[in-house]
Amino acid sequence: MATRGQPVINVYPVGNYSFGTKAPKLEKDANVNERLARLKSNYEKDGMRRSVEAILLVQEHNHPHVLLFQLGQSYFRLPGGRLRPGEDEVEGLRRKLSNNLAPPSTALQVVWDVGEVLSVFYRPNFDTAFYPYVPPHISRPKECRKLLVVQLPERCVFAVPKNMKLVAVPVFELYDNLPRYGPIISAVPAVLSRLRLNLQ
Amino acid sequence: MATRGQPVINVYPVGNYSFGTKAPKLEKDANVNERLARLKSNYEKDGMRRSVEAILLVQEHNHPHVLLFQLGQSYFRLPGGRLRPGEDEVEGLRRKLSNNLAPPSTALQVVWDVGEVLSVFYRPNFDTAFYPYVPPHISRPKECRKLLVVQLPERCVFAVPKNMKLVAVPVFELYDNLPRYGPIISAVPAVLSRLRLNLQ
Ligand SMILES: [Zn+2]
Ligand SMILES: [Zn+2]
Ligand SMILES: [Zn+2]
Ligand SMILES: [Zn+2]
Repeated sequence: MATRGQPVINVYPVGNYSFGTKAPKLEKDANVNERLARLKSNYEKDGMRRSVEAILLVQEHNHPHVLLFQLGQSYFRLPGGRLRPGEDEVEGLRRKLSNNLAPPSTALQVVWDVGEVLSVFYRPNFDTAFYPYVPPHISRPKECRKLLVVQLPERCVFAVPKNMKLVAVPVFELYDNLPRYGPIISAVPAVLSRLRLNLQ
Repeated sequence: MATRGQPVINVYPVGNYSFGTKAPKLEKDANVNERLARLKSNYEKDGMRRSVEAILLVQEHNHPHVLLFQLGQSYFRLPGGRLRPGEDEVEGLRRKLSNNLAPPSTALQVVWDVGEVLSVFYRPNFDTAFYPYVPPHISRPKECRKLLVVQLPERCVFAVPKNMKLVAVPVFELYDNLPRYGPIISAVPAVLSRLRLNLQ
């Protein structure tokens, strides 16, 4: 059986980080239908899509907050994305985070200290529903999304693509808020609760 | 930072286990008000109540199921209970599980292989609300409840107190079912998803 310890994460004040901008990252799909069509054609080529996403924590007035990308008024996602076929989860998450959040200057590269897998969600069909298990009688899920906690350095510089908005949302705001944040992000408070958050 | 591995749990068929009965365990409180009054008087004596609960898994027709006590038509709880002041979490959970589920015969004692803490919920006030974090501006929560996964042996004999009913509920039935199972048990599928369940 596993070790019993509850891992410790240091959570630094949001003011320790500076947030610049960089060239925009264009979304690959204009809408959900295009996205599902691309999922399907990639599935036929490469099999199940594997995604990795980071839970990045900062604190503000002593409450832990999660960093999310906000697209438009009402769509939120965790930093991360699709792994290449055969790519290692941790290497792939580092690549995605540098892509999403690190400044172009190599002098300012962030060291992404990737921790535990906190949760795994599956997409059983070519639609937008996700579950934290493979539903009954589904033998080939179409996507597997893993959420990993990432220990941020005490200070660093982020660079956010110009067309995207990075927000820090308090854990208590995500909790039980499925209508606004969806099934995966609204489960972050529960899956995070096994960690000891050391608010600095 | 923590290790990255996803712990493996072996999940055996429910038919591997036999379920006998033993002397009834009387509930300490007749209703919620009595329960809250006892919580309050214990808090004044011993400080924050610490509880530990077990996630025990079995499989049936290849789906993982969680063992729950069902009281009446609509109240469910995980096996476990309150720690004594100063008691170790793992020792206390073993004591509670033997109390709740082991046969009186010492020859049939179950070895409880206690694994990771999967989730921690707090009760900020002397009422029935729980959250997977200490809510803002609460300095002294009244209870801390930890959920630990327990690896069951491949086969064993359980003895359930005569006045209680033990049920095996599929993970997909608990998911997103807060009205029936409450905030803690309905979060079990998400907090469990980081484990690799090895269905035997
Ligand atoms: Zn804030
Ligand atoms: Zn505040
Ligand atoms: Zn069943
Ligand atoms: Zn079935």
